[in-house]
Amino acid sequence: MSTTKTASRIVLAARPHGAPTAETFRLESAPVPQVQDGQVLLRTIYLSLDPYMRGRISDAKSYAASVAIGETMVGATVCRVEESRHPDYQTGDWVAAYAGWQTHALSDGTGLRKINGLTHPSLALGVLGMPGFTAYMGLLDIGQPKAGETVVVAAATGAVGAVVGQIAKLKGCRIVGIAGGADKCRYAVEELGFDACIDHHSPNLASELAAVCPQGIDVYFENVGGAVFEAILPLLNTSARVPLCGLIAQYNATDLPAGPDRTPQLMRTLLTRRIRMQGFIIFDDYGHRLPEFIEAMSAWIKNGRIRWREDIVEGLENAPQAFIGLLEGRNFGKLIVKVGTDN
Amino acid sequence: MSTTKTASRIVLAARPHGAPTAETFRLESAPVPQVQDGQVLLRTIYLSLDPYMRGRISDAKSYAASVAIGETMVGATVCRVEESRHPDYQTGDWVAAYAGWQTHALSDGTGLRKINGLTHPSLALGVLGMPGFTAYMGLLDIGQPKAGETVVVAAATGAVGAVVGQIAKLKGCRIVGIAGGADKCRYAVEELGFDACIDHHSPNLASELAAVCPQGIDVYFENVGGAVFEAILPLLNTSARVPLCGLIAQYNATDLPAGPDRTPQLMRTLLTRRIRMQGFIIFDDYGHRLPEFIEAMSAWIKNGRIRWREDIVEGLENAPQAFIGLLEGRNFGKLIVKVGTDN
Repeated sequence: MSTTKTASRIVLAARPHGAPTAETFRLESAPVPQVQDGQVLLRTIYLSLDPYMRGRISDAKSYAASVAIGETMVGATVCRVEESRHPDYQTGDWVAAYAGWQTHALSDGTGLRKINGLTHPSLALGVLGMPGFTAYMGLLDIGQPKAGETVVVAAATGAVGAVVGQIAKLKGCRIVGIAGGADKCRYAVEELGFDACIDHHSPNLASELAAVCPQGIDVYFENVGGAVFEAILPLLNTSARVPLCGLIAQYNATDLPAGPDRTPQLMRTLLTRRIRMQGFIIFDDYGHRLPEFIEAMSAWIKNGRIRWREDIVEGLENAPQAFIGLLEGRNFGKLIVKVGTDN
Repeated sequence: MSTTKTASRIVLAARPHGAPTAETFRLESAPVPQVQDGQVLLRTIYLSLDPYMRGRISDAKSYAASVAIGETMVGATVCRVEESRHPDYQTGDWVAAYAGWQTHALSDGTGLRKINGLTHPSLALGVLGMPGFTAYMGLLDIGQPKAGETVVVAAATGAVGAVVGQIAKLKGCRIVGIAGGADKCRYAVEELGFDACIDHHSPNLASELAAVCPQGIDVYFENVGGAVFEAILPLLNTSARVPLCGLIAQYNATDLPAGPDRTPQLMRTLLTRRIRMQGFIIFDDYGHRLPEFIEAMSAWIKNGRIRWREDIVEGLENAPQAFIGLLEGRNFGKLIVKVGTDN
């Protein structure tokens, strides 16, 4: 019982050189597809926008295939089942899916996860979804924070950083954030419980960071790179752990930065301070541990131990501008596109 | 019953700018010290020269204190007890010690390890000493090689690299070395059992390395840095491990290399290929596991599974030139100074 006979989608129109622009994407219309036996028709309610998508629109070799020109943009979604010819699903079911930047999609059930009964279904894209899972495993499995240690995370009010900080706090750590602007820093401290939060626009980033990390840094959860990482490096303690989750500061870069080549400095620091730095891709490394995460995070949410903030943009057609802004840090909280009505 | 009444030692005369020179060190004489109750007088038979000593003569902050100007150079030694007023030691005992670049030293027993009965006492400075222990823990605990994987190690005929290669081979890995010159490469393959060994002087290092690593690299045991690491990086597989043990190629550097800054390239590779890079300092990280190593390595040696080569320099006075040569790769095998007669 589709409420519309026309589906919309956003495709990759051209690969960007540097930052993506409006010309990178194109909105297209097509008839709503017909369901076959063994399939469901999904109607997208929420679409998640995340920094990793910058990698998908590049043709540089990476851990996942690029989106081809003319193909629908990929992305995690919360959908409702509009029509089902699949024995496991009924019309009206809420599901977490990977339906991409479009209003409708067919699925044979692969990769779907039922989320009926969630008070806030959009959380399946944030604290209860890939970003929360990323924060949880990267911090706990690679970072291994101990009570009393200092944990630092950048993009501290973002979908991943906010969860990293709050879990580290639950583990008894001193938690320091880095964020873009006074409002975000205030929110990190007053609402999320960070012990301190430094504005990365500050001309004195390194000294301000040192001042709020008097015992050095034991875990640096890396999701930014660039100038922030340069300020972090001298403060890393012996036996520090650096889960390497993202590098948003360099995703739009077209060239390597000017010299000198600081690689030897990084290597020497890792060596003499016996530091572990480890990259991870959440579902590739930890997919089998999703149930453990869902259980732990659901309990924390139920008990009011984890807070969240969403930055919701209305309408699929506004996804490109929202995504461009995400790479510039213009969002405040988990960036989500409201694609369809939720009834 | 000292056979000489005069002791010799080599002290740090001046901190080098760049590569150390003859002026960096000074030979001094002094009377053999008098033993007090609870002490032993040690007479050095063998002195180990190792790359980490370059860090000790620098005043840059590192994991261990610098040698002060005028102080005796530090170093691992094999000694005999010349005179004992300590209940645990008898005259004539062989001990592994950390007596430094000198013919005689007093000890209260701290850090001594008896090695009576070793057929080749100098092995306590090589395959059965710090270099062997470094190879063993770095490869097995951080590198975690699995049968069939490709392991690469540079300075492949050096004290650490030769053991890394042979242990990896015992674990069923394909093992590729990088070494300086045709003789060393031939030795690595013909005597140590490497599957291949590439000369790092080759103008085609990257392509030659790629050719002998058709399945990519799963473990890169890093003890060199610089151009070798640049050639390695593109070949690292998903989920590769990089134990970071040393960076001899950059120890004498006075400035960072010219740009561009390749740090973002390294970080991106670690992230997208989910690579673990971990620095370690053997006795700080693994001191408690020395007995396990000694047991395993002693068995391998007894069964002829591990081979070694020593580059022995006669006379304490020749230690400075030998050390300068070590940093340039002029040694062939474990570099040891024969300081005293072994009877």
